[in-house]
Amino acid sequence: MLKIAIDVMGADNGVAPIVGGVLQALKTKEFKAFLVGDKTLIEPLVSKEFFPQIEIVHCEDFIRMHESATDALKRKESSIYVATDLVRENNADALVSPGHSGSTMSLATLRLGRIEGVTRPAICTLMPTITPKPSMILDAGANTDCKPEYLVEFAIMGESYAKSVMGYNDVRVGLLANGEEDSKGNELTKEAFKMLKAYPFFKGNVEGSDIFNGSVDVVVCDGFSGNLVLKASEGVASSISHILKGEIKSSILGMLGGLLLKKAFANLKKKVDYAEYGGAPLLGVNKVVIISHGKSNARAIENALYQAINAIESNVCDSIANAFKLKNPN
Amino acid sequence: MLKIAIDVMGADNGVAPIVGGVLQALKTKEFKAFLVGDKTLIEPLVSKEFFPQIEIVHCEDFIRMHESATDALKRKESSIYVATDLVRENNADALVSPGHSGSTMSLATLRLGRIEGVTRPAICTLMPTITPKPSMILDAGANTDCKPEYLVEFAIMGESYAKSVMGYNDVRVGLLANGEEDSKGNELTKEAFKMLKAYPFFKGNVEGSDIFNGSVDVVVCDGFSGNLVLKASEGVASSISHILKGEIKSSILGMLGGLLLKKAFANLKKKVDYAEYGGAPLLGVNKVVIISHGKSNARAIENALYQAINAIESNVCDSIANAFKLKNPN
Repeated sequence: MLKIAIDVMGADNGVAPIVGGVLQALKTKEFKAFLVGDKTLIEPLVSKEFFPQIEIVHCEDFIRMHESATDALKRKESSIYVATDLVRENNADALVSPGHSGSTMSLATLRLGRIEGVTRPAICTLMPTITPKPSMILDAGANTDCKPEYLVEFAIMGESYAKSVMGYNDVRVGLLANGEEDSKGNELTKEAFKMLKAYPFFKGNVEGSDIFNGSVDVVVCDGFSGNLVLKASEGVASSISHILKGEIKSSILGMLGGLLLKKAFANLKKKVDYAEYGGAPLLGVNKVVIISHGKSNARAIENALYQAINAIESNVCDSIANAFKLKNPN
Repeated sequence: MLKIAIDVMGADNGVAPIVGGVLQALKTKEFKAFLVGDKTLIEPLVSKEFFPQIEIVHCEDFIRMHESATDALKRKESSIYVATDLVRENNADALVSPGHSGSTMSLATLRLGRIEGVTRPAICTLMPTITPKPSMILDAGANTDCKPEYLVEFAIMGESYAKSVMGYNDVRVGLLANGEEDSKGNELTKEAFKMLKAYPFFKGNVEGSDIFNGSVDVVVCDGFSGNLVLKASEGVASSISHILKGEIKSSILGMLGGLLLKKAFANLKKKVDYAEYGGAPLLGVNKVVIISHGKSNARAIENALYQAINAIESNVCDSIANAFKLKNPN
């Protein structure tokens, strides 16, 4: 049976949505869940029927959002350290964490180790598109300043993930730039462009809008740019929703129209809701690690667990390792 | 009477929307328009009544979208060169161009000259927010690779524009970064942050979503990041519109709801439509220059002309020059 370690502490809204998401997933999929965190908070939320599938690993310490990632390396009793080490020692197959993401990245990189050939693990975020298939953007925030060769590594890892976990054929990878022409880009992306040309999956430069129109499957960028684009996209979606709600509420006919479109809006929301996409895999470490949003609701955690199971079953770490062996055959 | 030179050539949809926008603006505001471009294309579009206010400056050459900005510097007979020189020689007070933006920037910088203290002119784009006041983002694409001191210059120019042209009081300037905390940023923005701390208008780091929520008036970034964020935002808005249209059309009740919400959608569209914001001023050159979208419709050109008139009347170039004198009092 697959085993997943979940850092239950340190999310924005406490332990309840995290535990709730685990219970929800256990109703659908068979796996063993290690809930790592404060027993006194977790135990009341778990009814007895779940106990064969759930094991609470008690920790009192956890990394708060305002603390630094370097703290985590010294806090051996903290929930994220203990959860990571369950995976390190092969007691669990994957780690899911909605807590302090910097700590999760540091510990995953240092305690689980990098896949041979990977300089910098990267966060890969799934994005909705106007097609039925989501796109992937990486790095979505792990590496603020990048060298051109990191972007090449991100491309290789993204292609592997799209192929093995998402089941995409003939994966198309684009490089995020300020224009589609080959000549566009900044110093970083122009160098990366030259190196990426050697890979058949590389389709050239893409613009910010290409993340959503399905023209490529994987969009590669440095973690600073990735974060800007993600946050701006969330901001636009939430502003449009805010303005539209105001417009709908401003008249009786508008409210009636809003009622009639309730299903349409619900479908749209489902399509753009991060909770439907689970979490973001940290690619390039030796084990499956899913970084979830600190604000994750139960539905997001449930999906993050399915994503972890899918990643374990599709052997994504082996796929990435093989891709790097092909890249450096010596 | 104010005089504005308009490069009528080189936009994506030919001369008609450009000339149409000028005629529309002339019905509302008093100014003289120099229409620079192919007489045989422009003349049929202008009825006689407009002739005292319109002068066609005939040019056969123009810079095509696929040509490089350096070509423009040698093409003295091209519409953008001739239009820029009308401003250079004080025959016109402002330049509006929906043509090749790289050429417009290069010629404006070299032929009109930079304001003393400005190393790099920047494109300042107005963005819709959930408040009644738009925000501004600069640089939106003129300078792909930046030094920290350029970002400080962008902040000074943005503050001046917000105050003098937009009439904002107590302008708040934020630095675009991957998190709001002071410690966030890449190498570029961390250095810029230290320098910006000396300015009272500086409110610290902001995220991509802050462009739309009205938490600051001016968002400063390098031109590569600015372009990514703008294009991603356009992409999200158009994807949401695409998905929602599909949902509405999928059922009779949906279509009825869509009809009832027609006004709400129209108001939303108006709020997020670039055409309502005109064009993007190029800040830091000695004269008023408005760079319009190549896809500009007549409404966008009309608004770009109002923006140019507003910028001339508010003496924005003097305001920026004074701000730099205060910065470097020697």
